Amino acid sequence: MTERKGYAGNGLVHVKNPHLDSMDEDVLYHFNLGTKTHNLPVMFGDVKFVCVGGSPNRMKAFAQLMHKELGLEGDGKDLKDICAGTDRYSMYKAGPVLSISHGMGVPSISIMLHELIKLLHHAKCRDVTIIRIGTSGGLGIDPGTVVITDIAVDSFFKAQFEQVILDNIVVRSTELDKDLVEELLNCSKEIHDFPTLIGHTMCTYDFYEGQGRLDGALCSFSNEKKLEYLKKAHDAGVRNIEMESTVFAAICGLCGLKAAVVCVALLNRLEGDQIKAPHEVLVEYQQRPQHLISIFIKKRLGLYNQMELLCIFPE
Amino acid sequence: MTERKGYAGNGLVHVKNPHLDSMDEDVLYHFNLGTKTHNLPVMFGDVKFVCVGGSPNRMKAFAQLMHKELGLEGDGKDLKDICAGTDRYSMYKAGPVLSISHGMGVPSISIMLHELIKLLHHAKCRDVTIIRIGTSGGLGIDPGTVVITDIAVDSFFKAQFEQVILDNIVVRSTELDKDLVEELLNCSKEIHDFPTLIGHTMCTYDFYEGQGRLDGALCSFSNEKKLEYLKKAHDAGVRNIEMESTVFAAICGLCGLKAAVVCVALLNRLEGDQIKAPHEVLVEYQQRPQHLISIFIKKRLGLYNQMELLCIFPE
Repeated sequence: MTERKGYAGNGLVHVKNPHLDSMDEDVLYHFNLGTKTHNLPVMFGDVKFVCVGGSPNRMKAFAQLMHKELGLEGDGKDLKDICAGTDRYSMYKAGPVLSISHGMGVPSISIMLHELIKLLHHAKCRDVTIIRIGTSGGLGIDPGTVVITDIAVDSFFKAQFEQVILDNIVVRSTELDKDLVEELLNCSKEIHDFPTLIGHTMCTYDFYEGQGRLDGALCSFSNEKKLEYLKKAHDAGVRNIEMESTVFAAICGLCGLKAAVVCVALLNRLEGDQIKAPHEVLVEYQQRPQHLISIFIKKRLGLYNQMELLCIFPE
Repeated sequence: MTERKGYAGNGLVHVKNPHLDSMDEDVLYHFNLGTKTHNLPVMFGDVKFVCVGGSPNRMKAFAQLMHKELGLEGDGKDLKDICAGTDRYSMYKAGPVLSISHGMGVPSISIMLHELIKLLHHAKCRDVTIIRIGTSGGLGIDPGTVVITDIAVDSFFKAQFEQVILDNIVVRSTELDKDLVEELLNCSKEIHDFPTLIGHTMCTYDFYEGQGRLDGALCSFSNEKKLEYLKKAHDAGVRNIEMESTVFAAICGLCGLKAAVVCVALLNRLEGDQIKAPHEVLVEYQQRPQHLISIFIKKRLGLYNQMELLCIFPE
């Protein structure tokens, strides 16, 4: 059973749920927001870019970066967590940019996406682009490399996501927007301090056994078997491994949201399992996808100036 | 392929990974702790109870409750997040009780469990009991009811957890400790202000489609099909639905940790999908598993006094 992609002809987000219209109120429980308690069109109607990532602190830092980059009024350091009433997710807004944390793993990001898409629907947002800016393990690439995902694949290198619905398993496409991938690669050419490439991204349900790590509490395979698997993944075109991309691609695709995944590699998994780089190096790595996306957003908004960029990110 | 349970004869936690011994250093990345940077036996050697739950704030509140209940020195309000250097998880310690947040969903709790079990191993902890105190959707039970899980089942009501390892799927048992279930039920008899019962707990990979909700961004089934599925689950003995119990039971079982799952139901899913109870009601519900576990821990430590309890939780 395969489903068709959402049609985004009018630029609106497509909730595919006939029951929503008959609901008197919609409580977005994990955001601590709702249609009766909040004026969602006023709060979010101007959103054009949604950026999501695992860590709340990182997504706050990204909102602060965008606040500064877009020259918005006031001190970006004061940005308030819109989801302050709950600690499930954090959400910050800087002009047309919404920055949200999604925690770790497919289930966690999936809850966030359902509520985000309903939020964009209730707020009547148009022409929204959504980008996951995350961290990942690299495969045969240098630590610090940024990977723009062309296809999200599962642990068996298939470009699909299996969703359990009642007692059925529905297979969904994990295709991402090809034009957006090219547009992001073009933006990366403005940055000379780190490499960016296009590759497949493998999404797993676990960080240790599921990614072939030898350093978990449980490990039943040899170093040779691990490397055999990772090399097979590399041969299939996988350049990085993370834990959210397949469901992100599947849900956004079905709802007509143009979506991209841009993750930095914190290590090269062909050379080890443990993330041992010094804290300041990891912090700088995590800023790389943010910098790329800030250029992308400024270009889209006609605010990009190459000279200015050289001052912000001096080499 | 089925694996054998961990043997806990000497009371130590069993890491089942032959590679760990040859590692010079073990960085518990998502805790921001490590064997070279921290003296884990000194920090954690006295831990006897580990309590885990999704929300960082809730797990901080639980640590503060235990600090007070155990009559520990100092102000419980000052308890420091041991994982302060990262925002992936939060961790607090109150005497022999460790309280850790695990985020939402199987992948998120699985990363935490791998690193927790290695932490307990490195710290040479003995006779540790681990309890998940969480929230859930009830099935045919009143909101506010506390469910002690006897068996964790998947979306097809099977008592198993499927773990992908390299390109294989390994099936693991989700059995929980029977004696611990009985011990917890006995503790619940001391509490008269809310009902506690034993039942199966269904663990899903998503909150909306996977739990048969009609209020997600995507929904392809009717109210009738939803109720048919939920009633089938109820007939199979399921009394609540959450998103972590199967992998929790599987990993703890393999590593010889006596484990229990105690969740409060925030709503009755046979009567609706949205969590609409007032904030203060939900807050009180979430304290119920904490109160039960505080009695359990105090009984185990010989500190329980029924008269005292009546003063702390007046009816």
